[in-house]
Amino acid sequence: MPPIALGDPVRASTIGVVADSRNPDFAVGQWVMGLNGIEEYSVGSAGGFTQPIDPAAVPAVTNYLSLFGAVGLTAYFGFIDVCEPKPGDTVLVSGAAGAVGSLVGQIAKIKGCRAIGIAGGAAKCARLTERYGFDAAIDYRGKDVAALDAAIRAAAPDGVDIIFENVGGDILDAGLLNLRHGARVGLCGLISEYNAPEPVGIRNLWRLIVNRASIRGLLVADYVPRFAEGAAAMGQWLREGRLVFDEHIDEGIENALPAFMRLFDGSNDGKMILKLATEEQGL
Amino acid sequence: MPPIALGDPVRASTIGVVADSRNPDFAVGQWVMGLNGIEEYSVGSAGGFTQPIDPAAVPAVTNYLSLFGAVGLTAYFGFIDVCEPKPGDTVLVSGAAGAVGSLVGQIAKIKGCRAIGIAGGAAKCARLTERYGFDAAIDYRGKDVAALDAAIRAAAPDGVDIIFENVGGDILDAGLLNLRHGARVGLCGLISEYNAPEPVGIRNLWRLIVNRASIRGLLVADYVPRFAEGAAAMGQWLREGRLVFDEHIDEGIENALPAFMRLFDGSNDGKMILKLATEEQGL
Repeated sequence: MPPIALGDPVRASTIGVVADSRNPDFAVGQWVMGLNGIEEYSVGSAGGFTQPIDPAAVPAVTNYLSLFGAVGLTAYFGFIDVCEPKPGDTVLVSGAAGAVGSLVGQIAKIKGCRAIGIAGGAAKCARLTERYGFDAAIDYRGKDVAALDAAIRAAAPDGVDIIFENVGGDILDAGLLNLRHGARVGLCGLISEYNAPEPVGIRNLWRLIVNRASIRGLLVADYVPRFAEGAAAMGQWLREGRLVFDEHIDEGIENALPAFMRLFDGSNDGKMILKLATEEQGL
Repeated sequence: MPPIALGDPVRASTIGVVADSRNPDFAVGQWVMGLNGIEEYSVGSAGGFTQPIDPAAVPAVTNYLSLFGAVGLTAYFGFIDVCEPKPGDTVLVSGAAGAVGSLVGQIAKIKGCRAIGIAGGAAKCARLTERYGFDAAIDYRGKDVAALDAAIRAAAPDGVDIIFENVGGDILDAGLLNLRHGARVGLCGLISEYNAPEPVGIRNLWRLIVNRASIRGLLVADYVPRFAEGAAAMGQWLREGRLVFDEHIDEGIENALPAFMRLFDGSNDGKMILKLATEEQGL
């Protein structure tokens, strides 16, 4: 995608209702989702990511931004397609308390894998095992690569078959030290590196050679033609009570920056959503 | 493999003749290849990498250490199997004047690809285009990541579909900036990093996400059951005059360390071989 121009709103997955329309397929009052901006009104056009949504088909319409949106589908396709889990595999998830990571851990369990999550702080680690069903949780805070390596080794003495990587930096470097032969690393994000003035750099790629392992980058946009398949699977697991998910909803355009920055300090619990319209506006 | 114990000889691919034997399948005087040490006599056992070789089947018996040994088979299987070339692909090879890299460039051309090589110094770069048939050569000396990136971009304006990586560090980081969508990086070696007191670290893995690209580690040992297939293909191309290869032969156990260190300063031209036996010993 093109970079966001200076002065333009930051791009985001959005849902909302049509306020005005020149397209007969999108009547005023129709709910839609799309890739727009953090702004109170967007001018959208049909096609691409823009599609009508049915609020009655999901527990809450915001779920189109979490379980049934890019978050849920990233977890589903990124794990199933890119990481190729087999029953009995040991799966390491970084950013495991986040919106995507918490779903990956649960899908790993559904697929018969052992799930180990890495998150920041005791409260999030407790959520991993108590709420999301991870088999083990590792608190990355205060740990360098050697300490992270030791913690992963303690949780997975025989190594890991899959890493679902959201963080990068030291956490990825420690994960690489614990790969099993033929391991797959699904590279979903590198959030520790995006704002770093001087990124740390990954030093343990040599473990890919030793273990004949691979790293593959993933973006949910590649799976648009298969979104219905992913949403159906997630919906089925949700109805069966096998999935939980969380949304962290802040309100008001004046909170756009603090809400955005939660993604980097980890102070959100679940998918970060900013609510910009009021019930008087029909939402 | 286990680390080499302090005091033990450094492990190496070797060829030689049997001097004494307790195994009826290996008569005294029989030529064999194996994975032994840099030493004048080795105690070997049948199985694993040890196998009889026929000097009459190749132009020179040392070719079992180059084109028909780990070098040639690493180039063949690492490129064909791990990098999955298609006709028209643009292929970037680092360490391109080396024993493996020079073969990868030639196999890329045989497979209908465009080949760009990275090497150190004008003489090696001239060898790439004049002797090995690369379409373009880049001299990495004196170039930082930005300058390497610019040089790769000039040679491959539309990006690269495949990187065959022998070097790592800044060279890999610059290569990652030039990946096309769905590109494959075959990770064969990271020679720039092995002796570094503080490895640079790879900072551009985010390009794997942007381009849905992958890095996969490779070791020729995985292809032992298919060595005959690889050797047959290489032999056919050699007979057809489509492959050239070079061997750099030093002599004498007293030159073991200088010969080994050539691998790191790049002062060898072709596969580095150390000759330890004399013609009086039957070699």
